Amino acid sequence: MSATAPKQRLNIDNINPHVVEAKYAVRGELAVRSEEYRAKLARGDKDLPFDQVISANIGNPQQLDQKPITFFRQVLSLVENPLLLEKEDVLVNQLGYQTDVIERARWLLSKVGSVGAYSASAGVPAIKESVAKFIERRDGFPADPAKIYLSGGASSGVNTLLHVICANSKSGVLVPIPQYPLYTASLSVLDAQCVPYNLDEASGWSTDLDVIRASYQKAADAGTDVRALVVINPGNPTGASLPEDNIRAILDFAAEKNLVVMADEVYQTNVFEGRFYSFKQVLRQMQKDAPGKYDHMELASLHSVSKGMVGECGHRGGYFELVGFDPEVEAQIYKFVSITLCAPVVGQCVVELMVNPPKEGEPSHALYKKEYDGIFNGLKERAHALHRAFEQMEGVECGPPQGSMYLFPTIKLPAKAAEAAAKDGRTADELYCLRMLEATGICVVPGSGFGQKEGTLHFRTTFLAPGTEWTGRIVDFHKKFMDEFR
Amino acid sequence: MSATAPKQRLNIDNINPHVVEAKYAVRGELAVRSEEYRAKLARGDKDLPFDQVISANIGNPQQLDQKPITFFRQVLSLVENPLLLEKEDVLVNQLGYQTDVIERARWLLSKVGSVGAYSASAGVPAIKESVAKFIERRDGFPADPAKIYLSGGASSGVNTLLHVICANSKSGVLVPIPQYPLYTASLSVLDAQCVPYNLDEASGWSTDLDVIRASYQKAADAGTDVRALVVINPGNPTGASLPEDNIRAILDFAAEKNLVVMADEVYQTNVFEGRFYSFKQVLRQMQKDAPGKYDHMELASLHSVSKGMVGECGHRGGYFELVGFDPEVEAQIYKFVSITLCAPVVGQCVVELMVNPPKEGEPSHALYKKEYDGIFNGLKERAHALHRAFEQMEGVECGPPQGSMYLFPTIKLPAKAAEAAAKDGRTADELYCLRMLEATGICVVPGSGFGQKEGTLHFRTTFLAPGTEWTGRIVDFHKKFMDEFR
Repeated sequence: MSATAPKQRLNIDNINPHVVEAKYAVRGELAVRSEEYRAKLARGDKDLPFDQVISANIGNPQQLDQKPITFFRQVLSLVENPLLLEKEDVLVNQLGYQTDVIERARWLLSKVGSVGAYSASAGVPAIKESVAKFIERRDGFPADPAKIYLSGGASSGVNTLLHVICANSKSGVLVPIPQYPLYTASLSVLDAQCVPYNLDEASGWSTDLDVIRASYQKAADAGTDVRALVVINPGNPTGASLPEDNIRAILDFAAEKNLVVMADEVYQTNVFEGRFYSFKQVLRQMQKDAPGKYDHMELASLHSVSKGMVGECGHRGGYFELVGFDPEVEAQIYKFVSITLCAPVVGQCVVELMVNPPKEGEPSHALYKKEYDGIFNGLKERAHALHRAFEQMEGVECGPPQGSMYLFPTIKLPAKAAEAAAKDGRTADELYCLRMLEATGICVVPGSGFGQKEGTLHFRTTFLAPGTEWTGRIVDFHKKFMDEFR
Repeated sequence: MSATAPKQRLNIDNINPHVVEAKYAVRGELAVRSEEYRAKLARGDKDLPFDQVISANIGNPQQLDQKPITFFRQVLSLVENPLLLEKEDVLVNQLGYQTDVIERARWLLSKVGSVGAYSASAGVPAIKESVAKFIERRDGFPADPAKIYLSGGASSGVNTLLHVICANSKSGVLVPIPQYPLYTASLSVLDAQCVPYNLDEASGWSTDLDVIRASYQKAADAGTDVRALVVINPGNPTGASLPEDNIRAILDFAAEKNLVVMADEVYQTNVFEGRFYSFKQVLRQMQKDAPGKYDHMELASLHSVSKGMVGECGHRGGYFELVGFDPEVEAQIYKFVSITLCAPVVGQCVVELMVNPPKEGEPSHALYKKEYDGIFNGLKERAHALHRAFEQMEGVECGPPQGSMYLFPTIKLPAKAAEAAAKDGRTADELYCLRMLEATGICVVPGSGFGQKEGTLHFRTTFLAPGTEWTGRIVDFHKKFMDEFR
C-alpha cells in the first residue's frame, strides 16, 4: 500500500472523545484477560498455575453457581411456551409444577400477551401496578403505577435519567466515592460533570453531610450547575446501609440546594447489618411531618432483578420510580425510553415475580422460602469467611460485612510495589489485582475503578463464589506479593 | 404555596435540549392515544365507534396474533427451566418435544451457563460463532466471531455505533428519507447532524446516487464533517430491496468519501420482490475484484430477531458485525457495550435459534418450515390485500408491496384538510392519521414521522394485522375524510 493509500475513517483520535474518556473497570482489562484464561483452561491448557477462573469482579451470582429460584423459572418456562399450559395434568403430576406456578403464568400471559411482542414503552401496565403495590407494602405510602418505568436492568434506568437531567457540559451530578462506575462512565459519555463526594471508610463507609456540602460548594464555585445527587444504598462497592437519620439529612440538603435525588437501591434486600430504609419512604415521611417544605423535591429510585436473592442479571429486568417530577419532564423520559421500544419482556416478567413472590400458604411458598433463605445465609456466611481471611492478611483492613455482594478492603502495599506499578504505567492496586489474577485465577477490581480517597488503595471482590478454598488462595497470593516487594 | 416557594429543579426548559428535540413518532402521541382507547375497550366502554384497536404503527407481529415459532419457544422453555431436562421422557412422550429441541437446549446451556447470568459483554462466544457461520453461509465469504456484537435488538446496536462515530456537533451521518426514526432521534440526542438524502418514490423508493452525492456535498459545504452513511435495506418504511448494482454504487461512493457504512438489514428475509444482497457480501466481492481499492472501508451491518418470520421483538435480540474497523476503535465499542453489561441472554439465545433453525432431516424441521412459510405467505397476502385497498382510494398512490412489514402510500389530501390541520398546529398527514385512529381504531404513523420529500404526504402502516376486514375500515374512513374536506 502506498503512503497515500486511504485509511479508515475512524481512529482513536477522531471518534467520540467522551466515549474514549469513559472508564469501566468492572469489565475492563482484567476481566478480558480472565476470560482468556477461562478459554485456555477450557481448551485443556495446563500452563496456568490454577485450574479455575473465579470472576469475583462482578455481581453475577448465577455465573458462580447460585441456583435460580425454582418458582421464577417454572413460571418463565410457561410464558415462553404457553402451549405447555394445555397439558396442565402433566405439568402438575409429572413435572412437579405447583398450581400457583400455573396460575401466575396464565395471569402473566393474560396481561403481557406474547413475551415475543414489544410491550408498552414504559413496561407492561399490569406489572407496573404490581411494582406500585410492592412499593406501597414496603414503604407504607402510596405509589403510582404511572410513575414506574420498567427498564433493562437498573443500568438502562440510570442511562435514561442522566440523559434527561444533564443539559450540557456544565451540568454536574454528585456521586459517592467509591461508586459503581456506571455513574462516572455515563457522565463521561454525556460530557457532564461528576462531582465526587467521599464516603467515610472509618465509620463503615457512611455518608458525611459536611463532605457532601463541601463537594457541592467547591463545584458550584467552579461554575458547575449541580443538579442531582446519587446515593447508592446499600452501597456498591461498600455494602453500607444508610441509617434513617442519614437519609433525612441527605434529603434535607437536596431540598435546600434543589437537587434531584437518584437513589440506587438495587441491593435493598442484601442487608446483613442494620436495615434498609428506602429514600421514597423517608421522603414521604418528611413531607408528612413538614407539609410544604419538601413538596418540590424530585426523587428517582431504582431497583433491579439482578441482585438480591433473585440474581437474574442475564434477564435484564429492573424499574425506576419517579416522585415529584414535572409532567413535561416525565413526558420526555417517556419519549426517551420509547426510542429503544421497551425493556426485555421476559425481564419484565421477572420484575413481576420479584415483587410478587409466593406468599405464605401458597403451594410454592415453602420451597421459595427455603431457596431464598439459603441464598441469603450463604452470602452472609461467605462474606464473613472472606472477611476472616482479610483479617489474616498483613496490611489489609476491612470493616465487617454489612451487605450488598461485595467487600472493599483497604490494602497498604509496600513502596516498591508502587514503583514497579508506575514503571508499568499502572497504579499499585492495578498491579496487585493483575498479579492476583495471574497467580490465582481470581478476578477482582482495583479500587481505582470505583474511585478512592487520595492516598488509599483498595480492591473490590464479590463474595459470591461457592466454597471457601479460594479465599485461602488470596491469602497465599497476598503473602507472596508482600514478600516480593518488601 | 407562596410565589417564592421552591420549584422542581427540572423543567422542559432546562433539561437536556437534545432529548427534547428528538422525535419518535412510531410511539408518539397517536400510539399513546391508541393505548388509551385499548384500555377503554378493555373496561367495557361502548362509546367508541370501533370495538378493537389495531396497532399498525409498529412492526410488532406477536401483538397482532402472529404465533411464535414452536421450535424456538420449546427450546427457550428448557433454557429457562433446565430442571425439565431431567424428565426427558415426559418432554418427548407427553409434551411432544422433539429430540432436536432437547439437544439444542442442552447445547445452549452448556455454552451459556444460566440465562440468569450476565454473559460476556459482546455476547456468548458460542452464539457469536453461530452468527459468523450463518453470515458465511449467506454471503459465501468468511466472518469473524470476534467482530460480532450481540445487542438488545438492532436499536441498541445503532445507539452504540452512532455514539462512537459521532464526535461532536459537526459530525454528520447520511440518513435516507423516509427512514426509521431511530436514526434521526439518536442523532438528535447525540447533538450530531442528520444529513438527509431522499429516496426516489417514483422508481420504487430506490437509492439515487446523484441525490446522495448532492446531499453529501451540500452538508460538506456547510461545514458538516460527514462520517457515515446509513442504508436501510430492505427499506423501512419503504420495503424496497436494493439491487446489487445499487449497493455497489453506494459502497463505491462511501469509499471515495471515506464514509463508514451502516447497513440496517433487519428485514433481510422479508423480501417479496427481487432478492436480498447483503452489504457485506457485495463489499467482499468488490474487495476481491479490485484488490486494495476498498481495503480501507468500514462497514457495520445490523440484524435483529424482531423482524423476519421470527418476530420475537419482546426478547430484544440482535447483533451487529464490524468489517474493517480500527482495532482501537473496536476496543472503544467493546467498552461502550460493557458499560451496560450485556444484551438480554434469552434474546441472545433467540439469535442462536434464528441463525441456526432446524435443518432438513432434523425432527423439528417440517413443523418449522410449515410455520415459517405460513408466516411469509400470510404477510405477502395481507400486503397485497392492503395494496388493493389503497388502489380503490381516491388520491392514494402506492407502489406494489416489495418487502419489510410496511406500506408507505402517498396521500393527496384536499387543501382544506391542510388548513384545518394547520389551525390545530398539525401537519395534514398528522390530522389524517389522528382522524383515522378516532374513526377506526387503526393506529398508523404519519409520513412526517419518517421524513418525506417536501410537498408530499404519506402514512406508514404495517400489514401484520390478521384478516382483511380492517382494510375495508380504512377505505371507508378515507372516503369520509375526503368528502369532509372537499
